Amino acid sequence: MSAVTYQAAGVDIAAGARAVELMKDAVRATYGPEVLLGIGAFGGLFDAAALRGMDAPVLVASTDGVGTKTKIASALARYDTVGHDIVNHCVNDILVQGARPLFFLDYIASSKLDPAMVAAVVSGAAAACQAAGCALLGGETAEMPGVYASGEFDLVGTIVGVVDRADLIDGSTIQPGDAVIGLASSGLHTNGFSLARRVFEGWDLRAEPPELGRPLGEALLAPHRSYLAEVQRLRQAGVAIKGLAHITGGGLIDNPPRILPAGTAIHLRRGSWPIPPLFQLIQRAGQIDDAEMAHVFNLGLGMLMVTPAGQAAAALDTLGEGWLVGEVAAARNS
Amino acid sequence: MSAVTYQAAGVDIAAGARAVELMKDAVRATYGPEVLLGIGAFGGLFDAAALRGMDAPVLVASTDGVGTKTKIASALARYDTVGHDIVNHCVNDILVQGARPLFFLDYIASSKLDPAMVAAVVSGAAAACQAAGCALLGGETAEMPGVYASGEFDLVGTIVGVVDRADLIDGSTIQPGDAVIGLASSGLHTNGFSLARRVFEGWDLRAEPPELGRPLGEALLAPHRSYLAEVQRLRQAGVAIKGLAHITGGGLIDNPPRILPAGTAIHLRRGSWPIPPLFQLIQRAGQIDDAEMAHVFNLGLGMLMVTPAGQAAAALDTLGEGWLVGEVAAARNS
Repeated sequence: MSAVTYQAAGVDIAAGARAVELMKDAVRATYGPEVLLGIGAFGGLFDAAALRGMDAPVLVASTDGVGTKTKIASALARYDTVGHDIVNHCVNDILVQGARPLFFLDYIASSKLDPAMVAAVVSGAAAACQAAGCALLGGETAEMPGVYASGEFDLVGTIVGVVDRADLIDGSTIQPGDAVIGLASSGLHTNGFSLARRVFEGWDLRAEPPELGRPLGEALLAPHRSYLAEVQRLRQAGVAIKGLAHITGGGLIDNPPRILPAGTAIHLRRGSWPIPPLFQLIQRAGQIDDAEMAHVFNLGLGMLMVTPAGQAAAALDTLGEGWLVGEVAAARNS
Repeated sequence: MSAVTYQAAGVDIAAGARAVELMKDAVRATYGPEVLLGIGAFGGLFDAAALRGMDAPVLVASTDGVGTKTKIASALARYDTVGHDIVNHCVNDILVQGARPLFFLDYIASSKLDPAMVAAVVSGAAAACQAAGCALLGGETAEMPGVYASGEFDLVGTIVGVVDRADLIDGSTIQPGDAVIGLASSGLHTNGFSLARRVFEGWDLRAEPPELGRPLGEALLAPHRSYLAEVQRLRQAGVAIKGLAHITGGGLIDNPPRILPAGTAIHLRRGSWPIPPLFQLIQRAGQIDDAEMAHVFNLGLGMLMVTPAGQAAAALDTLGEGWLVGEVAAARNS
């Protein structure tokens, strides 16, 4: 065979270096004094002195992806919003245990690396990190010709946060009679995209369905909302948060049980919160039954919060948003 | 259109649950008392009391993938070794800064999730974590139809470790005259697979090239070696390690400069270590020149270590392996 070089085999090391150059300012803007070494190092260094003031610090870590939301981003060549998505998804995943984020790392892989695309994703992630007070400590890009379909990419994030052991939220005190508050989602967040894409196969993502009032693709790409500020506000106001359920894969059906003690269940009242037009459109266009919808999507509730019944009004008042969407009941079998 | 369900859209939530069932024992075997909550939680909980005995703990974090080595694993339907790869790669990436691993998280995504495959990958990762004294604290699997090519997968890992600030290895004291010791790799590790696969296109992975003495696919899949035990042994013996370079993407050319102070360079002496038959085969079959080989592959050296010249012999003696492969020189331009 003729001589082969790495670039001819589909991997461009220089393109990776160009991407780093494009995004490094946005990344560095997320660094406080606790970041000793960040972008470009083998590993990022984060000064654990930040944990000194705590009685019993517990590190909380989570890895996740944004699913096939990346395909909508690719189709529209709009790459910054998924950067926000992955960070906020991860922030929420550790927030449900009471943790605040310390640092985040990203991974972007594709069949072919486009430096401008990578820089857009990472800049979006950096902006979301900055909003969450979280350092974008490191990341990796990979070109994997033959593994990824042409033009498609995956985006993975890992977050590490901390919570004082006494402030851990673990759902253990949840009991029948507690109130369940729902906080609005900003859209599909990062779940149900395989189903939504199937439903909208052949639709023009740039067209505006009248009930959405904006282009379909834009509605689908709306960034995953972070609930960090809301939870912090409630805690400062002294509201007891007994449990938080981030509504991710498995929708409103599979996520709440993950935080419930044996012998309890969450009953949600349909009609107690507005189901946003995008979900209604998906359901109608795909002829999907209610049970399947609730099993896949957040249906307008991105986070459920369990509080003592007597504190629900104070919680809603402090938040200035949200709905009392149900209550905790005794479950027939545990 | 007719009714769509999530499973028909290519995502099987139950398959994910089955994979968790298959791998949870291997994962739990990596848990010491510092793991407060692991597999199945929104976020894994790791007790930071483990950091208490240190003067100034610094957290070190890194994310990486195994590249298109996954394609060899897919072709041979052999999935455990890449689990070892991703953990050991990450262990080495933070080891070069002097850190020992605390916990690891994995991410596996494919167009279609095979529970047995996922369980094999994670079990391999769990075994490598256990060997490194590292908890497999969490992970995520994702089915992304249309993003991944059929039958292919990506594997991403994130590691968090810790080092006392005084023990950080940062290369800052490296100076001309220092010795460079090379430690043997176990094969390609996780780099250069796009090029190697191109070279071996059409070859039978199950055939045994005479110079390898084992099937080509097996040689290509040989797990990435961890150097954790070796570095710990040297430190216990009092050998001063001034710098460590993990030979990853960019090969022997791009990685050493990442740890060198301005005005220094590493000169490696060809012939001072044996280049393993697999690299020779790749070079010959692909008609690849020496510079390109060194720019892509580790050529038999998975880790380079800089020590004071006077300690090189003691280091080699303590290790019972490795070669004096070069020295630090003054660089013409910084």
